[in-house]
Amino acid sequence: MSQTVQTAVVGATGYAGYELARLLLRHPRVARTVFYLREPNGAKCLTEIFPALRGWGEAPVRKFSADAVAAQGAKIAFLATPHEASLEIVPQLLETGMRAVDLSGAFRFPAGETLAQWYRLEPPDPALLRRAVYGLPELYGAKLADAQLVANPGCYPTSVILGLRPLLDSGLVARARGIVCDCKSGTSGAGKEPRRDTQFCEVNENFRAYKLFSHQHTPEVLEHLGLGAVDMMFSTHLLPLTRGILSTLYVWLDSPAAPEDIESVYRTYYAGRKMMRIWPAGRLPELQHVVDTNFCDIGFALDPSGQRLMIVSCLDNLGKGAAGQALQNFNLMNGFEEAEGLI
Amino acid sequence: MSQTVQTAVVGATGYAGYELARLLLRHPRVARTVFYLREPNGAKCLTEIFPALRGWGEAPVRKFSADAVAAQGAKIAFLATPHEASLEIVPQLLETGMRAVDLSGAFRFPAGETLAQWYRLEPPDPALLRRAVYGLPELYGAKLADAQLVANPGCYPTSVILGLRPLLDSGLVARARGIVCDCKSGTSGAGKEPRRDTQFCEVNENFRAYKLFSHQHTPEVLEHLGLGAVDMMFSTHLLPLTRGILSTLYVWLDSPAAPEDIESVYRTYYAGRKMMRIWPAGRLPELQHVVDTNFCDIGFALDPSGQRLMIVSCLDNLGKGAAGQALQNFNLMNGFEEAEGLI
Amino acid sequence: MSQTVQTAVVGATGYAGYELARLLLRHPRVARTVFYLREPNGAKCLTEIFPALRGWGEAPVRKFSADAVAAQGAKIAFLATPHEASLEIVPQLLETGMRAVDLSGAFRFPAGETLAQWYRLEPPDPALLRRAVYGLPELYGAKLADAQLVANPGCYPTSVILGLRPLLDSGLVARARGIVCDCKSGTSGAGKEPRRDTQFCEVNENFRAYKLFSHQHTPEVLEHLGLGAVDMMFSTHLLPLTRGILSTLYVWLDSPAAPEDIESVYRTYYAGRKMMRIWPAGRLPELQHVVDTNFCDIGFALDPSGQRLMIVSCLDNLGKGAAGQALQNFNLMNGFEEAEGLI
Amino acid sequence: MSQTVQTAVVGATGYAGYELARLLLRHPRVARTVFYLREPNGAKCLTEIFPALRGWGEAPVRKFSADAVAAQGAKIAFLATPHEASLEIVPQLLETGMRAVDLSGAFRFPAGETLAQWYRLEPPDPALLRRAVYGLPELYGAKLADAQLVANPGCYPTSVILGLRPLLDSGLVARARGIVCDCKSGTSGAGKEPRRDTQFCEVNENFRAYKLFSHQHTPEVLEHLGLGAVDMMFSTHLLPLTRGILSTLYVWLDSPAAPEDIESVYRTYYAGRKMMRIWPAGRLPELQHVVDTNFCDIGFALDPSGQRLMIVSCLDNLGKGAAGQALQNFNLMNGFEEAEGLI
Repeated sequence: MSQTVQTAVVGATGYAGYELARLLLRHPRVARTVFYLREPNGAKCLTEIFPALRGWGEAPVRKFSADAVAAQGAKIAFLATPHEASLEIVPQLLETGMRAVDLSGAFRFPAGETLAQWYRLEPPDPALLRRAVYGLPELYGAKLADAQLVANPGCYPTSVILGLRPLLDSGLVARARGIVCDCKSGTSGAGKEPRRDTQFCEVNENFRAYKLFSHQHTPEVLEHLGLGAVDMMFSTHLLPLTRGILSTLYVWLDSPAAPEDIESVYRTYYAGRKMMRIWPAGRLPELQHVVDTNFCDIGFALDPSGQRLMIVSCLDNLGKGAAGQALQNFNLMNGFEEAEGLI
Repeated sequence: MSQTVQTAVVGATGYAGYELARLLLRHPRVARTVFYLREPNGAKCLTEIFPALRGWGEAPVRKFSADAVAAQGAKIAFLATPHEASLEIVPQLLETGMRAVDLSGAFRFPAGETLAQWYRLEPPDPALLRRAVYGLPELYGAKLADAQLVANPGCYPTSVILGLRPLLDSGLVARARGIVCDCKSGTSGAGKEPRRDTQFCEVNENFRAYKLFSHQHTPEVLEHLGLGAVDMMFSTHLLPLTRGILSTLYVWLDSPAAPEDIESVYRTYYAGRKMMRIWPAGRLPELQHVVDTNFCDIGFALDPSGQRLMIVSCLDNLGKGAAGQALQNFNLMNGFEEAEGLI
Repeated sequence: MSQTVQTAVVGATGYAGYELARLLLRHPRVARTVFYLREPNGAKCLTEIFPALRGWGEAPVRKFSADAVAAQGAKIAFLATPHEASLEIVPQLLETGMRAVDLSGAFRFPAGETLAQWYRLEPPDPALLRRAVYGLPELYGAKLADAQLVANPGCYPTSVILGLRPLLDSGLVARARGIVCDCKSGTSGAGKEPRRDTQFCEVNENFRAYKLFSHQHTPEVLEHLGLGAVDMMFSTHLLPLTRGILSTLYVWLDSPAAPEDIESVYRTYYAGRKMMRIWPAGRLPELQHVVDTNFCDIGFALDPSGQRLMIVSCLDNLGKGAAGQALQNFNLMNGFEEAEGLI
Repeated sequence: MSQTVQTAVVGATGYAGYELARLLLRHPRVARTVFYLREPNGAKCLTEIFPALRGWGEAPVRKFSADAVAAQGAKIAFLATPHEASLEIVPQLLETGMRAVDLSGAFRFPAGETLAQWYRLEPPDPALLRRAVYGLPELYGAKLADAQLVANPGCYPTSVILGLRPLLDSGLVARARGIVCDCKSGTSGAGKEPRRDTQFCEVNENFRAYKLFSHQHTPEVLEHLGLGAVDMMFSTHLLPLTRGILSTLYVWLDSPAAPEDIESVYRTYYAGRKMMRIWPAGRLPELQHVVDTNFCDIGFALDPSGQRLMIVSCLDNLGKGAAGQALQNFNLMNGFEEAEGLI
């Protein structure tokens, strides 16, 4: 009943790593977590890396090796490492019998070429890719109980896929007219490493689009929506705030629908899913509602003709878009209730 | 050569009014401006209303009446009044022989029904509507020299129309697939009156869509792009910053184009227009570049297939989207260079 | 062991009320909370008032009367009401035998004249004032077990008193030179009611001092530091952010001290207090470390001569400065561990 | 009458450099400006370095050498270079007969040891230091007409010195009690180079003190106020906004004063100075009033006893705190009206 699990975290030094640490420290089913870095630089405990966690809890920091993690007795390892590091480390961890949740993009694509094309990385062993489960619990939750390797989705794709998949499955959408996904993210999504374009004065009182037609999250979106590149336009923008993604999604419908039809599509698809909050017609979700949570909120507006539809999908890019979702996957991998430790 | 003009401003108490006052105080062709309020509440001079203007200049504040404005000798009156007030005041001012630039929505539509439907206001005399020039100089500059009444455009429409009109005129756009305009505005666009949803804590670290399918700027956009309602989806969002609008515009093209084709469409259309800055393919404009200016910046990204196009159009909602544009109209109404006092 | 308590909340519609609701919903020792409003305006449940709480939990909303609260079986009532309402309601609730934690300023002063002078309110029954415990657990925790009425401290005073009291008690401070408390608060401290000066555009990219020499929190600070008005200057400023107070405190020392002396003063005074985090010499706390927590962080810098000392004290104005502290008081009133439900 | 001057700018790549470029492009007395960089990296013109300046004007960019600047015919050179570079370049420029306004800290101290101690730099030739005028026009304007080398003050010192000097000269201040200067700055003051602690997510929704008792601006403040280190505490804090400094200054008075006395001290001291705006008792300046201007605004609050005084001094750190002040110095060096091109 109160079964707990030992976990390991590899590479938690960035914003998603911080969030992961914070969530693990308070998760009722996590027995103990050890944090591993390739270069601990003398750090022995978590609060040396994240001073703000003082008083919340403490955990050891150690130099990473797959053997060290295995020797610790961890059943599940979370990887908050760069793509390249995940490609190298994940096979080592799986070999020891451990299960892994990888927050990088390394194992998200069944086809190695996708990784090669969009990330310019050497793809991993195809057998490994085939074993990886795309960790979007509302779509693939049933596969998680037995998953050895879970590829935690990207933040933008989580928002867009959860916002569009029920509608596309419903058959209501006029796909031939094309779909537009206009996504806006807080700056924590850009990572913690100092960069000129994420300096405070470059983001504050500013707003900009970036990586148009070239964002590496594009193939995830297409794959899990069953769309071809030419059917969709997907854009990403940088908001002058820290946390949150809001995606405004535009579809034309084949024939007129009523607001209740649309609401019903979402309610049916997400019935029983605790992390999804569907807003009634006429109420739109907003970023403040989801920041610091693991919820994905969905609302919509249908025009009077019933043929033009705008969907608003929002979530916390470090929560449901990264660390929170990793823990939701962890819960389902272990047979726990999916929202445990997340509400 | 150094001809100057006396002006009057009616109703400048909000953010656009402040910007208008600031620009008029430093405009080399403005001889003298008097500010009129319906209820001066004892204020005698401008810096009592806008203390931040101390040291920039000073101007008298008087109780409004059309006769008072005429007696002052003002040749052109700017109205920064609510729609209802403009409907009442503009005819009075025109009768005295004065010319007017109205920043409200009251005279933007040739058809009175549009005002009735979208603003729920009693439309003015049709003859008056026919005399009004829609004050978007890059499209209708030639009509300004003789205009008695200029309806200064809305902020969102300025951004969207300037971003799409050249492309629509070029014949490259696959209109039948539909056009998406995803617009984001700073909070000064919501006005200065205290409201719960524009309190600091409701906007800060937040982002939200609003008035989907019901924004009163919709008919302006449709009218000046020659589109029907069903061809387009136009959305508006509130950014956690003070000034600026960035519109991301999505079109499909009928046949593949090259980036140079697109750039050329804009450069040709806006040749010689000093307030338009076209960015070369691969460079996107951002809000910081246009804040506190009267520029409208346009950039774009074309996908490798040459058939999907995203355009980014941005401007300062109080500048080119309101007060700056009003002065650009003023310049052309008087035969001055259009950028005078604005750069 | 797992004893739980029924609670009532009166008047939770503002920011502190939201925080209180959020903390109560997740507190392991709170059996059930009912929310009371004087004018529920048809609301039946908490998420109608705070839609962002959907999915976190639910609670009934009812029309307030002292009898209704008593009939519910609540043992402790939290009042997130205006001062005036607390003055009226608290006696009613105490009469029914309930205990109360009042977040307003109504019962913070032993002397009725202080309330009359600083709040311009008719002071309550002196007997009632004498029964009230000032709910700053780190100073007066021992009185909480038996307290019937707890006056939850103001946000600024919590920050200043916790930052200075250990030092003043130590005898190191040259009081005759005067003490300066320069305090800066996030805008949620100004409340949720729409006001011109807390509109987004008035706070964003702005910073200002306010209520100099007249802030109603002044007498709290003086009282619990044992200072006379002329010994201290206390200022308040508005930060362009939502949550948090940072106070920079300046004292001169009577004779040279070493950094370890100062650190030791704080560590000794706050030994065993879980919500206090003392930073070692040379490390300063910052707002981000305490936002969304119930911690009060204290750091300092001593000049090379050892006679000039700056102390930085920071906390979340809605956490340790309001709702979090109310729950810390609740914990101690019930004999629970003081940090329960707060970490 | 409409005399103009050729100028050169060395090293303008940061935020103050941008502001300087912007102001020079629109200054009516500046004939032509050439921008010099040590490493132009192929840049030929200003808008390649500052794309936001497109449409405002253009200027050549060249590789720096003192000879090149002299050959250009520039009469005055502005240095927006690091301290080290200024130490090297200024003597070279002066040797060619040019005058220089240096925005770095290199020449601000008559005593070389101050530079050595606070900046850890090898001090320049003492003769050169003696020739340098501290470019605070409201205090030392009379020396500017003949100055060969002007050391443009730091942003914090400008704010503090202008706020306190009139009062200290008045003899009203009880110096023995000590003076506290609590200063808060926007993040542009930290420069444009990418740093971890000025990344957006580290500054946004954060506030912190830094460099307590060790800020390099300390000796400037002491020197121009005639204070010893032990008489004053000077602190600096980082605001989550881009531009502006607000200093809250605390003094005790020797004997009771009336608000009119204080206001009169400032009005008399700054009589005729166009860049100083003194606010009447009871009105406090705020950052928004001075951002994007060259004004320094001063207001105050006196307690009812007339012996405790708080002064608020604010300015734009890139305007009056850097580039604007450099141009004000330029104006006075050339006999122009001091506010020319700045209002």
